[in-house]
Amino acid sequence: MKKWFILPGLFLLSIASFSQQEDSVFIRRLADEILLRGHAYEDLRVLTKQIGGRLAGSPQMVKAEQWGLQTLQALRPDRAWLQECTVPHWVRGGQDMATARTKTGQSKSLDVLALGNSRGSGPQGVSGDVIEVRSFDELKEKKDLVKDRIVFYNYRFRQELVKTFEAYGDAVRYRSSGASMAAQYGARGVIVRSMSESTDNIPHTGSLRYDSAYALIPAVAVGLQDADWLDATLATQGLSVTIKTNGHFLPDTIGHNVIAELKGTEFPDQYITIGGHLDSWDPAEGAHDDGTGVVQTIEVLRALRAMGYKPKRTIRFVLFANEENGLRGGTKYASEAQARGERHIFALESDEGGFTPRGFSLTGSEEQHGKLASWQPLLCPYGGCEMLRGGGGSDIGPLNRTQKTPTVGFSPDSQRYFDLHHARNDVFEAVNRRELELGAVNIAALVYLVDKYGF
Amino acid sequence: MKKWFILPGLFLLSIASFSQQEDSVFIRRLADEILLRGHAYEDLRVLTKQIGGRLAGSPQMVKAEQWGLQTLQALRPDRAWLQECTVPHWVRGGQDMATARTKTGQSKSLDVLALGNSRGSGPQGVSGDVIEVRSFDELKEKKDLVKDRIVFYNYRFRQELVKTFEAYGDAVRYRSSGASMAAQYGARGVIVRSMSESTDNIPHTGSLRYDSAYALIPAVAVGLQDADWLDATLATQGLSVTIKTNGHFLPDTIGHNVIAELKGTEFPDQYITIGGHLDSWDPAEGAHDDGTGVVQTIEVLRALRAMGYKPKRTIRFVLFANEENGLRGGTKYASEAQARGERHIFALESDEGGFTPRGFSLTGSEEQHGKLASWQPLLCPYGGCEMLRGGGGSDIGPLNRTQKTPTVGFSPDSQRYFDLHHARNDVFEAVNRRELELGAVNIAALVYLVDKYGF
Repeated sequence: MKKWFILPGLFLLSIASFSQQEDSVFIRRLADEILLRGHAYEDLRVLTKQIGGRLAGSPQMVKAEQWGLQTLQALRPDRAWLQECTVPHWVRGGQDMATARTKTGQSKSLDVLALGNSRGSGPQGVSGDVIEVRSFDELKEKKDLVKDRIVFYNYRFRQELVKTFEAYGDAVRYRSSGASMAAQYGARGVIVRSMSESTDNIPHTGSLRYDSAYALIPAVAVGLQDADWLDATLATQGLSVTIKTNGHFLPDTIGHNVIAELKGTEFPDQYITIGGHLDSWDPAEGAHDDGTGVVQTIEVLRALRAMGYKPKRTIRFVLFANEENGLRGGTKYASEAQARGERHIFALESDEGGFTPRGFSLTGSEEQHGKLASWQPLLCPYGGCEMLRGGGGSDIGPLNRTQKTPTVGFSPDSQRYFDLHHARNDVFEAVNRRELELGAVNIAALVYLVDKYGF
Repeated sequence: MKKWFILPGLFLLSIASFSQQEDSVFIRRLADEILLRGHAYEDLRVLTKQIGGRLAGSPQMVKAEQWGLQTLQALRPDRAWLQECTVPHWVRGGQDMATARTKTGQSKSLDVLALGNSRGSGPQGVSGDVIEVRSFDELKEKKDLVKDRIVFYNYRFRQELVKTFEAYGDAVRYRSSGASMAAQYGARGVIVRSMSESTDNIPHTGSLRYDSAYALIPAVAVGLQDADWLDATLATQGLSVTIKTNGHFLPDTIGHNVIAELKGTEFPDQYITIGGHLDSWDPAEGAHDDGTGVVQTIEVLRALRAMGYKPKRTIRFVLFANEENGLRGGTKYASEAQARGERHIFALESDEGGFTPRGFSLTGSEEQHGKLASWQPLLCPYGGCEMLRGGGGSDIGPLNRTQKTPTVGFSPDSQRYFDLHHARNDVFEAVNRRELELGAVNIAALVYLVDKYGF
């Protein structure tokens, strides 16, 4: 659970020093550039509407990489290039289906989506009586009843948690490990309540990891209304379900991180990385996950270039490959940095949606926390008030693990994110132009401060 | 422009005292009650979907009052009643239309909505060549060209203002005074760029005030894409427009504030008021304006009752009448309070939408600002971090004017509000359940603190 390290209290610091006034003026100019002449929203329209979902290995991945490179090159950075990496190539393979039949003969089609990386059921599908569990503990208690059954994990988001990422972090084990946990007791398939607290019935996919010691059984996420229907029906009578899915892996293929660089004028050997990930799940347009992070990254470069900014340190703008089901892009970026002896002093990722800014979360030293805290009065007028401990992003995690680079996650408001995360409603229309742009303002401002003062 | 009085800075206060720990525990229980067992979202569904738009004087106003009274009574307050007031009764009277014709013969139907309180054009409509102005200054400069024309006010929201209410406050004079300003120079009608910064073409209504010294000419708001089309077309050629509207006033009628009360156990003569307004513009469901304020007000009562809370002071829960085009409800409430010698120590309104909470804005003394600031660490974990100067709400303004009651406005995030304010897309589906509930949590927590400690 992330903890505050700056719980906004009384304003006891005044922006008094000359340098903070100078910074305040520069950040206001950055904000004007982005809010009055921003391109992020139109970039997002192209990425989501003309390219669409872009899972690793898909034709859309290739298109997105080409678009990313051209878009970055058009901003005339000092360098822009593709960094090759091997990526997994999972395909859904067709329409996912699940049909429930009650003992009284009622039949109901469920709105389901196969989990990413899951293996298909084969053309006949898998069928079995449903056994519902609300936790892994309950699964263990009922393990003797699981054989040849379909296990229905009906674990709910904890609604009392204010930050929805905490509820996601609490619940996601049922999606990632539920299939193998059930397979070890002989289950034929699993249905997982979607990782969401929405009020609709849209299913949410996302990756699972099989434990290769057990059968690789089919696994689907089910919409919340259907999950509630399963729960209510099972309270009074038995149910059987047939699941048909077609997921499988094709051979690994080639993907790329897309990178642009502004060379540092004073400390070119100190690297600052900001980024988002270019891949997205297939059923949607990948707007909030993570189209917004991608276009904010591009927008920060655009705004700095438009202002003629010459950084002291080298700033990298990275559109990472394959965050969703492999992390091969982030891993490659860190290993190549290590191999080249690059010193990465700071990394920031925007991968929590393009919603209205709340602040940043940091994994770093006490001194670094203090530095970020001292900048809060400069960011807060643009919404970036809340500073949390323990943040970063999947793609920059490897930098932290290989060379202890402090990592920062951009933290927008989280309430709407799991309404559309990994689901077909994660589309361009769900993004608000100004919220997206204000996120870019906060990220640009923080990158400017890190570049100017170090970290 | 609202100024910070607490710009969240370093957290130098610790929640150390026993009473703050006790308060923290109580507020956590309040939050659990609202987030786990809340009714606000379902209440909003009934108000918006079963009743709908409910302008003063309309049949839906009467339905909404009855629903409000029954819903409050079901929560078993100490008292619940209707407080009668006279309300204006403006009706749209039919479909608003505007058609533009270029000099080259192109014809285009514009998406328009007559401004509230405006008088209709008569069945023939009004026609004239269009003259575009971007400000009242430009109107004055061009005053000799205005006679028999249609004036098109094309003033844009200032995008660089982070808080959209500031942009609205800056622009709204063209909606409220534009018609009479143009009529004084002989204009036949006005078209006003909608008070919005959305990316769609939906027009936004809202009230105007005629200066009775001049002709009461028709006035419509136009969607932003159509506004941009008018602007682009006028740059190259002349345009004429025909406007047909049907607005008129019926005789004043009877409306009601709907009020519930919990009687204070220690200081029953000290009154705390919280509320929202029950009326809404006719083209939409009035979800964010102000269905959410209404159901949050009801939810605070529900949560306090569910917890068996006995207030020290008398708390009033008020669903105000006629905020949109008369303020008769708020005026009546304050004048009756004055006539009865009631001492109102605090008033809070939720009328800035049901979006994710940001904080509160206060109009009060320095001592009161200090008190609110001291509670910030208790509210911030639920999103209520930002404390601004100069807030309140239209309906509680009269209390401040008659007896200097400090007034507080609940301040949710403002980025999406003017995408749907007074427009047909202000519907139930635009409200997020958790954002709505978190607003209720913050309001309930603040009411609890004011009740316990006074203000």
